[in-house]
Parts: sequence; C-alpha cells; structure tokens
Amino acid sequence: MNGAQSLLDTLVANDVEVCFANPGTSEMHFVAALDRVPAMRGVLALFEGVATGAADGYARMAGKPAGVLLHLGPGLGNGLANLHNARRAHTPMVVVVGDHATGHKRYDAPLESDIDAVARTVSGTVIRGADTAALAADTAAAIGAARAGAVATLILPADVSWSDGGAPPVTAAPATEPGVDHGALRRAAEILTSGAPTVLLIGGDATGEDGLAAAAAIAAGTGARLLVETFPARLRRGAGVPAPERLGYFAEAATAQLAGAEQLILAGAVSPVSFFAYPGKPSDLVPEGTAVHTLAGHRGAAAALAALAAEVAPGIVGPVAPAGRPELPGGPLTALSAAAVLGALLPAEAIVVDEANTAGVTLAAATAGAPAHDVLTLTGGAIGYGLPAAVGAAIAAPDRPVLAVQADGSAMYTISALWTQARERLNVTTVILNNGAYDILRIELARVGAADAAFGPKAAELLDLTSPGLDFVRIAGGMGVPARRVETAESLAEALRAAFAEPGPHLIDAVLPSLFAS
Amino acid sequence: MNGAQSLLDTLVANDVEVCFANPGTSEMHFVAALDRVPAMRGVLALFEGVATGAADGYARMAGKPAGVLLHLGPGLGNGLANLHNARRAHTPMVVVVGDHATGHKRYDAPLESDIDAVARTVSGTVIRGADTAALAADTAAAIGAARAGAVATLILPADVSWSDGGAPPVTAAPATEPGVDHGALRRAAEILTSGAPTVLLIGGDATGEDGLAAAAAIAAGTGARLLVETFPARLRRGAGVPAPERLGYFAEAATAQLAGAEQLILAGAVSPVSFFAYPGKPSDLVPEGTAVHTLAGHRGAAAALAALAAEVAPGIVGPVAPAGRPELPGGPLTALSAAAVLGALLPAEAIVVDEANTAGVTLAAATAGAPAHDVLTLTGGAIGYGLPAAVGAAIAAPDRPVLAVQADGSAMYTISALWTQARERLNVTTVILNNGAYDILRIELARVGAADAAFGPKAAELLDLTSPGLDFVRIAGGMGVPARRVETAESLAEALRAAFAEPGPHLIDAVLPSLFAS
Repeated sequence: MNGAQSLLDTLVANDVEVCFANPGTSEMHFVAALDRVPAMRGVLALFEGVATGAADGYARMAGKPAGVLLHLGPGLGNGLANLHNARRAHTPMVVVVGDHATGHKRYDAPLESDIDAVARTVSGTVIRGADTAALAADTAAAIGAARAGAVATLILPADVSWSDGGAPPVTAAPATEPGVDHGALRRAAEILTSGAPTVLLIGGDATGEDGLAAAAAIAAGTGARLLVETFPARLRRGAGVPAPERLGYFAEAATAQLAGAEQLILAGAVSPVSFFAYPGKPSDLVPEGTAVHTLAGHRGAAAALAALAAEVAPGIVGPVAPAGRPELPGGPLTALSAAAVLGALLPAEAIVVDEANTAGVTLAAATAGAPAHDVLTLTGGAIGYGLPAAVGAAIAAPDRPVLAVQADGSAMYTISALWTQARERLNVTTVILNNGAYDILRIELARVGAADAAFGPKAAELLDLTSPGLDFVRIAGGMGVPARRVETAESLAEALRAAFAEPGPHLIDAVLPSLFAS
Repeated sequence: MNGAQSLLDTLVANDVEVCFANPGTSEMHFVAALDRVPAMRGVLALFEGVATGAADGYARMAGKPAGVLLHLGPGLGNGLANLHNARRAHTPMVVVVGDHATGHKRYDAPLESDIDAVARTVSGTVIRGADTAALAADTAAAIGAARAGAVATLILPADVSWSDGGAPPVTAAPATEPGVDHGALRRAAEILTSGAPTVLLIGGDATGEDGLAAAAAIAAGTGARLLVETFPARLRRGAGVPAPERLGYFAEAATAQLAGAEQLILAGAVSPVSFFAYPGKPSDLVPEGTAVHTLAGHRGAAAALAALAAEVAPGIVGPVAPAGRPELPGGPLTALSAAAVLGALLPAEAIVVDEANTAGVTLAAATAGAPAHDVLTLTGGAIGYGLPAAVGAAIAAPDRPVLAVQADGSAMYTISALWTQARERLNVTTVILNNGAYDILRIELARVGAADAAFGPKAAELLDLTSPGLDFVRIAGGMGVPARRVETAESLAEALRAAFAEPGPHLIDAVLPSLFAS
C-alpha cells in the first residue's frame, strides 16, 4: 500500500469521511487512491478557498473534521482566507497540502515555495510527512490536533505519497474537553452573587442549546446581563431557544452594551475588542474599571456554564424566544423587507450561513422567532466565506435546508462554490442581497474619519459595484445553479418558497438599494 | 499631509501611476487620499488575485511597477498565488498591505494574523511602516527594491496611514542592471568557439527583440543550439523575429532537446529542472556529463548576449521567423483548429496572455509566422493568472489588442477579472478553450504512474468539469462582458474578427473535445 492510501485509510478509520479537494499533479496518487478507499467522499472545488470554506462549514455542523486537499504553496495561498476564518472559529480541519517530492525540492522548480511558513500562520499544528511508513501516524497526529479545535496541516511530499510501505490506520487521540476550572467557577459564582452589575459574555461551544440554556438560567437567577460574542461559529436560535443579544460589531454599539458593568465574565468568548481601530477611539471595549474574569475558553464553556448554573441558579429556567414571524411585507425590496421575508419563511431546522454584512443588519431581529435554526457566522472577518460554508453545511446535514444570506461584494471572492453546489446537488438556497456596493466600506470610510477632508469621486468609485452591475442570475446559471432576480418583497417570497420546495441549489438575486442610495 | 497621501505622492513621483486595489476598512485613508493624488489611477478588483495578477501583467508590458492595495493577511493570502507567479517572473511590483493600527495589533482582533511571515514567502523585500514621517522613505525603498525585479511588500498600519506628518516624496533608487561579467563572457566565448556541442538557453530579459537577435546571431555564428526557457515572462515572437524553440514542459521533451550537449550556457535562464518530480525519473534535466556555464542571470542577460555576439558572431544576423499564417480551418472545433484560427487572425502587435495549458499545445506553432507580438506566460505554475494578467497588460498598453487564451479550469480561479475588464472597458479578447476537464491532470495522472493500479471512477470524477458544464457566456455576461459560444472553426473565426473589431472586452467560449474524449 502506498502512502496516499495509508493516509486515506487513516482518515476514514478516524471518521474523517469527506475531503474537499482542488488537486494538482503532486496530488495525483492521493486522487488515484480515492478509488481504493470507498468510505472517503471526494468533493471537487474549482478554487481552493471553496474547499477550505466548505470544510469549515462542514465541521461546524458535523462536529468533526473534514479533510482538504490542496496543491502546493499557491493552492494553500488560495485557501488561506477561509483557513483564517476556521482558525478564528476553532474549527477542526485536516488540511493536506501536496508538495514536491523530497528530492525535488532542492531544484527550486517553478512551483517551489515556503509552504511551511504560510501554513504556520493559520494552523495549530503543521506536520511534514517525511516517510511513507510514518504517514499513518502523522495523519493520526493531525486528526488528533484538529479534534482539539484547530486547523492541522499535513504537508505531503509526492514521493511520501507514491512510495510503497504505508502502514495500517493509526487511531487518533479523541477530542477531550478541558475540565471545569473549579477556582474560576468559584470566583464566577462569587461575582454573580455579589450584587455587582455583571455582564456574562458567552461564545465558543456555549452557543449551542445547552450552553445557551445554562447561561440564560444564570442570567435569570442572578440578574447578570447576558451577551453572545459578535461572531459565533455556530449559534442556536429561534423559537424556544434562549435569545441573548449579540455584542455589536460597531464599537459604539458594543460600548453601550457593556456600559455600567463592574464585572465581566467570559465563557468561551474573548475579551471584547474593536474589530478595527479608529483614530482617537480605544481598541479595548471593556469599560474602564470593569474587572474581567475568564470562566472558560472556547472549548468547555458549555460545561462550565452548566456547572455554574447548578451553583447559582439551581432549578431556574431562563427565558426563551417566543415563536413569531414578521408579516410578509410587500412593495419594492429593501434590506429591511428582505430580512422580513426571510424571517417569515425560514424553514424549521434551517442552517443559516450569514455573510449578509450591512444588508443583513435586521436579519437577526427578523428571524428571532422563526422555528429553531442554526446560524454560522464570519468568525475571522475574511469575506468569501458564505457560499463555500454553505457547501460544507449542506454536505454535513443533507436533510436540513441551508440558507446562505450573502452580500454581493463578498460573494464574488469564492463564487465558484455555486458550481460545487450544483455538482453535488446540495439543498442550498442562496439569497444575494445585491445592493451594488461595498456598503460596509462606505460606512467605515466615514467612521475612520478618512472622508473628513475629501471624499471624492475616485474613492467613491472604488466602493461602487454598479458599473457594470453584477447579474447573479447569469453567473449562477453559468455554473448550473437555477436562479432568478427579484425586486419586490412579494417576488422574493415567491422565489424563496419555490427554492425551498425543490431539491438542489437555487439562487435568488435580490436587488436592493444601497444604504447610501439617495 | 497624512501618511496615505505621502505614500501615494511618493509612488507617483517615482512613476508608479496605477494601483490595483481590493481595499477594506484599514485601507480607507489610502482610498480617500486617491482624490488628492490625481496622477494615481485606482483600479478596483473584486478579488485580490485579480489585483496581483493584473499588476504582474502590467509590469511585464509597462516595464515598471504598478502598486497593489490589499486588506490585511487574508487579502494577502488571496493575492498570494499570483504574487508567486510574479516572483518567478522577476516582476517589479509594490504591494501595500494594510494592517491594523499599531496599537491595535496586541488585541488580536478577528482579522489579526502574521502578515509579515506570509509576505516574506513571495517578496524580495518586506518593509513594515513604523512611522508616518518615514513612510515616504519606506515607499521609495520599496519602489527601489521592486525595480530590481522583485515583489516589494510595504505593510501599512492604519495609524501610520491616517496620522499627519507625512513627508514629501522621496526619490527611489533607479533600476540598475548588473554589469556584464567579463570572466563569464570570456568563458562562454571559449565554449562557443571550441567546437563542443553546445546549447545556449536564454530567458529573463533576453527574450525581447534585442536579446533574441543577439542569441540568434550567436547560434548562427557558432553552431550552438538555441533554446528559450519554458515559461518566459515576456517573449517577443512572430514574423521577422528570431524564433528559437522553447524548452519543453514535459521532462521527456526537454531531455530530448538537451541530448548530446556537452556544454550548456545559461543567459537569463535557470538550469533546467523537471516541473514536477516523477517516480524513477531525474529532476535535473541537464544530461549527465554536460557542463553548465552561467553567462548572466535574469537581468542583464540581453546585454551579456549582445557583448558575446560582438565577440563570437560579429556582423552576423541570425534567422528570423518568416511571415506566414495557417489556412483558416473549418468544421467542428478542436484544440488544433482553434489554434489555427488564432494564428490566422492574430492582429499585429497583439499581447497574447497564454494560460491555455493542454488545449494550447499547438498555439505556438500556429502563431509562429503571425505579425510580431508579445506572449506572457505562466512563470510560476500557479493557475488563475491569465485573465488578471490580461487586465494589467491592457492597462499598460491601451493601444494594443490583448488576446487571453485561457483554459476553462484555470479561468475559474480568478474569473472576476472579467468584471474589471468590463468596468475599465479594456480591449481584451478572452478565448476560453473549454474542454470540460482538467486535461493536464489526466495526462499527469498517467505520467506519475498513479493510474497504474486503479484509475477508477472517483479519480476520474475529480478531473471532470462537465457535470455541470461551465457556460462562460452566461458567467461573462453576468459580469458585463459580451460573450458568445462557438463550436466550429468558422464561428470562432467570425467571433474573433468581431471581437477584435469592437473596442472593449469580449469573451468567446470555444467548446472543444477533451484530449481524452472517445
């Protein structure tokens, strides 16, 4: 058995059963070995950022890592932005980067580059396969590292892949949770029962149903104010689910939410900082004088909250979101009415992939009382995440409807994800909120003070996407995804109903005014 | 004046007058400053790989660097593959990567990552702006480093950009050529006049008209065999231009071309190595026993060849390609007939951006006697280069027709370059050679021996692009580029004529059989 097969056998023996791939010559033995490992599903992406984003979306829904197959340094580069998002989400992922054969590297062939250096910037672990016999163990080590909540990169030289002498599968270390820190727990309980104004900010693995319930009970039992981190990797929400506010994206909003807190307890979230810096404004959003106490990190936060709830709020059940949907609006589509239509029609157990950016600001409110669903968000701020993540989520949960709510500008970074959706016949409905602009940058241009002196026509042009406008119906159609354009709330509702009713991918190009439209 | 304006003033004072940009929040002061620096042209790309590839194509034609504006680490990641190609082409380029404000970095905000580490893998020089007052000097240093034939990366923290105190423009060091190495010249002359079978392999700056003429004279005067490197950054060719063979991409072909040489002289080219390694085959393509002598590196090769020609071939004029075009073929389109149509109709002084891969194997032969033109090739092997490079070439040379001959699979990595072509109304004609497959990988799968044991349906599926097929007419139309699909040689000819006759971008989706079609 060659190295490639040993690697694949080890992946499937450890329940890694999907590989999102964009291979090249140095990966051909890996590709050929797929036919000898029937349990591994290979999913082709036309661009590496689609593969890495899909693996992120997959793992967030499946709760286990997918594999990714990339071609040398440039392939890793193309996948880097969504690996950055995965790193910020603590997503388990096994990234195999094919490399030149060991003896070939010294010749500095055209595709030679420093893969290791690039991989280290996004990976918890980087392993370079040095030996075919050790590859099963290397693979198991990568899987174990991934299960701890990280991108694990396995660099696979072509000769290590093609040579004979591969070992049978090696069992990877299981995912273990950090135990509850009893000192931190005791201190949190003291704070919460002290009467001091306290904010409990949750994130990480506490944004599922159990963590939310424990946190809501704590808040109800102690009077603490409960907030959820701005960009949770996977958030459970909707009717019957506790519905804490999310910390605002804009520093001004977050500052207001945190004002007056004497104590801030973190469970799975990091201490709040401004997404970007702004002239004359603080980066650290913790109010002056507020003490910060960390109860738990990204993993183990739900368990820590459960233990804390048992102590400070025994028997208490926190409030949950009531069922309730917006009325179906009518008339010309706006960001507001589009969100209302989505809230009115969101199917039960939907997976909402949210890269709506500015056009989606009211989406959370509009879907708050919709049937329970999961939301995946842009954890690392690297746009081009939504369409690929929808691919992965749909593969992880084929029986659930996936709704990708997608800003137009961000969609273009990884647009070929639509082709993979068509090829794999995935139940993904993509709604492009097409406002013809980088509206977020129009806002930021003003916020950073850049526009004070002269916000002229050249700057304006760099934030405008209307010349020419993007026709997502044609773009999607060219990749095999049926699509239609809507300009009224009524037609969006009709298109959404039709998309959800029919298997396979659909795209709706929802044309909206820019926030800055006069 | 703030840092951003000081930076832009320094760029334009040093003749860097185009900036290919995909900005984000941390770059808003740079964007706002564009309106205060009228000489700088900002060109928006919807994806960073389009910006970096365009800057590469621009510099190859303009002979001077463009600027690039990227957003933090993920933006650099998205641009990395085409920076890799630029590094291999020795392309001068000034890449400005916006970073968080200096004081913001320690907070590890969501977009924080190790920009420096990633930048170093593709850059000759990485400068981190530390101080607004020094930014003009930093910018000049980057321009100087770029002019020496490298990617120079200037990391620009947002506060260094927005703060006041920017200095007036600083003059960058001029591009200086390495002088002729007289010892190496003498040795080359000895070799060439010794009567030993000799191959002269040229590349770098020797693939323009002057270098080719000198090399052709040397070959004619001494009997040396003349070859051009496999992937020249910019190759002059066509009727009236010396037309040496290019070294083959496949190792088998290159080995045959080099067989029998006792001496190999390198002028601007590196010693030939196999693009990839293959089991049991050597990476080094220099025949055993052949002595390798380096006359000149990438820069200064043309000058060294001119000096050498004066010595060993005074007064001699080498042969040039005769004028002559293929007959216009008819019938269903094939790779062969498509190339013939292109050869029959190529306009004078065209810029041919060649990312045709397998479908373009006969393109060079078919265009050998066409009117003189320039060809830009995929120097680093990172696909997704062609459409962006065409953007840059068209901006550098607005009066010349640009023909992008583009493989279908490779086109999808940076497809949004079409939008920039439409927005800037560029005279680019893109011909997609659409064979519905990663044909190169079908060839490589066999060559690496991966398919010996079992080339099964799963492997085959990962190299197939027909399910669904890509409709480039709709994709291009969705981005504002008029397009048509052709399936016969006659209709390709008609579409090409129409495209060349009308200003602005056009796309022709030329549907071909795969090389492996039964």
